[in-house]
Amino acid sequence: MIVVGGDGTFTGGLIFSKEFNFPVIGVPATIDNDIFGTSHTVGFDSATNTVMEAIDKIRDTASSHNRLFFIEVMGRDAGHIALNTGVAAGAEEILIPEENLGLDRLIQSLKRSQKTGKSSSIVVVAEGDNTGENVFQLKDYVEKHLPDYEARVAVLGHMQRGGSPTCFDRVLASRLGVKAVESIIDGETSSMVGLQNNIIELTPFKKAIKGITKINTELLKVSDIMSI
Amino acid sequence: MIVVGGDGTFTGGLIFSKEFNFPVIGVPATIDNDIFGTSHTVGFDSATNTVMEAIDKIRDTASSHNRLFFIEVMGRDAGHIALNTGVAAGAEEILIPEENLGLDRLIQSLKRSQKTGKSSSIVVVAEGDNTGENVFQLKDYVEKHLPDYEARVAVLGHMQRGGSPTCFDRVLASRLGVKAVESIIDGETSSMVGLQNNIIELTPFKKAIKGITKINTELLKVSDIMSI
Amino acid sequence: MIVVGGDGTFTGGLIFSKEFNFPVIGVPATIDNDIFGTSHTVGFDSATNTVMEAIDKIRDTASSHNRLFFIEVMGRDAGHIALNTGVAAGAEEILIPEENLGLDRLIQSLKRSQKTGKSSSIVVVAEGDNTGENVFQLKDYVEKHLPDYEARVAVLGHMQRGGSPTCFDRVLASRLGVKAVESIIDGETSSMVGLQNNIIELTPFKKAIKGITKINTELLKVSDIMSI
Amino acid sequence: MIVVGGDGTFTGGLIFSKEFNFPVIGVPATIDNDIFGTSHTVGFDSATNTVMEAIDKIRDTASSHNRLFFIEVMGRDAGHIALNTGVAAGAEEILIPEENLGLDRLIQSLKRSQKTGKSSSIVVVAEGDNTGENVFQLKDYVEKHLPDYEARVAVLGHMQRGGSPTCFDRVLASRLGVKAVESIIDGETSSMVGLQNNIIELTPFKKAIKGITKINTELLKVSDIMSI
Repeated sequence: MIVVGGDGTFTGGLIFSKEFNFPVIGVPATIDNDIFGTSHTVGFDSATNTVMEAIDKIRDTASSHNRLFFIEVMGRDAGHIALNTGVAAGAEEILIPEENLGLDRLIQSLKRSQKTGKSSSIVVVAEGDNTGENVFQLKDYVEKHLPDYEARVAVLGHMQRGGSPTCFDRVLASRLGVKAVESIIDGETSSMVGLQNNIIELTPFKKAIKGITKINTELLKVSDIMSI
Repeated sequence: MIVVGGDGTFTGGLIFSKEFNFPVIGVPATIDNDIFGTSHTVGFDSATNTVMEAIDKIRDTASSHNRLFFIEVMGRDAGHIALNTGVAAGAEEILIPEENLGLDRLIQSLKRSQKTGKSSSIVVVAEGDNTGENVFQLKDYVEKHLPDYEARVAVLGHMQRGGSPTCFDRVLASRLGVKAVESIIDGETSSMVGLQNNIIELTPFKKAIKGITKINTELLKVSDIMSI
Repeated sequence: MIVVGGDGTFTGGLIFSKEFNFPVIGVPATIDNDIFGTSHTVGFDSATNTVMEAIDKIRDTASSHNRLFFIEVMGRDAGHIALNTGVAAGAEEILIPEENLGLDRLIQSLKRSQKTGKSSSIVVVAEGDNTGENVFQLKDYVEKHLPDYEARVAVLGHMQRGGSPTCFDRVLASRLGVKAVESIIDGETSSMVGLQNNIIELTPFKKAIKGITKINTELLKVSDIMSI
Repeated sequence: MIVVGGDGTFTGGLIFSKEFNFPVIGVPATIDNDIFGTSHTVGFDSATNTVMEAIDKIRDTASSHNRLFFIEVMGRDAGHIALNTGVAAGAEEILIPEENLGLDRLIQSLKRSQKTGKSSSIVVVAEGDNTGENVFQLKDYVEKHLPDYEARVAVLGHMQRGGSPTCFDRVLASRLGVKAVESIIDGETSSMVGLQNNIIELTPFKKAIKGITKINTELLKVSDIMSI
């Protein structure tokens, strides 16, 4: 049996495999890219492009109307979508669960951005970010402390999960699917196929479920440099 | 002088033209399609495609997760965006400012939709709709009265204003632009160029500002029939 | 019976209807927009956007590489796609079956375009255009007479027929579909539903098949003005 | 100095750096993904998505009209675009410069494909493929040997070079750009920044220019399995 999903799916697959002594191989597919044992999950690349295109469209308005936009994107526990789309769309700030620098720093950074002559700003906020209670409270706080700005909120929501998959995602899904079938044929079980350094490798479910994916700290630095 | 915008812009143009005795011609460009004297405003077609593509993506999730989605789209006074995208994306319900059938009817309609075996539903809500206080209150009300449904809200916001214009909008803008220049040369003033039955015609600012655009009632009927 | 297509389909529908005394209503759907009795066929708006996006992408290269591009688009007998996309994408020249100004004029126009400082040019050519024998012969002729230019050909081909339909096309298809069913119920037959001045009307098959759609001469003028 | 391009650009950069004793760092940007020292060039991901979307649109027609499509895509020396888009779009055959299995095998494969009940087929052909003389000759050869098929050719051409970049390409470009500036500051020269196992690394121009990128043979296998 081949199961497609995330940690919950693989936990179920592990139990099923033991109980029924039946081979189970997992394919990692979540838009959050939050699965240990694969550098990319199926769906992540598509979701980042959907989000980036939405931010591009909002930027068109931001540029022409002198505004501050808070854009909430998916990611309860992982900031991969926020970080990648924030860099890609040139966001002034990216707020993610893995890093909480506090409200004061956000205000300071937006003030600095204003002084450099920027007429508008985009702040990408992952769902699971803890800088504010939520994106609406964040907006109110910033408007209170930066009265010159007119702030707006966009909650992209479930459109991030849909759409036609990108080339990267389709190629990845094909590669993982072929490897999953081959693994079953080879007698493997209770493992997940994943992309590691551009090669498809197996990771035992136990390891994949326990493991924690880390945010690319290089991207955090790139974001800081690019948004000056 | 050629001014591009909506009623506010044309009101300004009218005053300017009189005060300085200077020719002013207006080009109707709002995404809401709410200007009298033109069947289509520049930007409306682009906005409807952006909205429809977002609803299509949300539908992908709705179909696979048994949910009810409330999608708020632009349109403070006019339901053109909601009505056209709702029909195009096959929404189960379309709520617009021009028509308030009340909360009871919405609940009845969604119940009927559930009985016909539909596993999910899309409700497109124009900003200016008065069925509920706002889209979040609507969601709460429906969840209370239809406990089987898990409801979600998406507020598309300012992404509706951005993006690359469609072929229709670019052709319309070119035709209106040429006619605007020709009108100035011909000595016209204080008028708006607009599309009427596929021909570019002039409408005096006074008439354009006072006139009220009506919703296409045929589309309301089409929507009712298509969503059964 | 409801039949969807163009002149061929409607001719068949007419024969079928008479032979079997069975009601037949037609829905006009061709990408060429070449059916009499409707200002827009289902599929035309989608095709123009697909073509325009392809030309936009080619323009990106044209601008950065000092080149002349001949882009062949669909339209054996009708230049609607070429004319609309050419205006929308800012083509320097649009060659259509309805108007043959000859090779000399094309060369003169491209020379003029070069003198005004344009570093690149886009020429949109409808399949059925008779200025050259075909788009490759056109390219050779122009390269011979304008040796400074490096010319390239793109034949967009069948990608013009595919893709997700636009909002306009979906709304039109819904309106035509509802009217087609209503017409059958009302006892109508051997007629086509079509869009006329934004209202859905019936046209007898006989008239629709014989009628000839005309190119919008206003668009030809707009194209000439915009490409100076 | 930071130079952006491919082998030719880097060769020039190397000479310039030596002659003027001036630091030069290169950023790999070609749509062909044919540069040694980086798993991905800037532009490749965007090009593959543009190509895949075009093939998707052609597939819509292929499916409904019982046809064989030959689609020529960029890649004079490298088949990366053809291979990735062919897998992503489910092409029946992918012809690339790195692998010439001959015309006989192509005919056998298409015959097999026909027998399995497929009503249409897509063959993606890299520009530099040597199976036929060119895509038009290929079409003629196949039509002669498989008379049941009606074959069509699409040459995607320069539209592959344009369009808005994908999220992956923008993030990659940002990371490479930051590293390029840092390398200059660190006193590095005559080297190219590149992506290796998801980390940005330096490769000396000499090595990058001489090195040859290899096609991912795993993808060839995936393609064979998926197209059965």
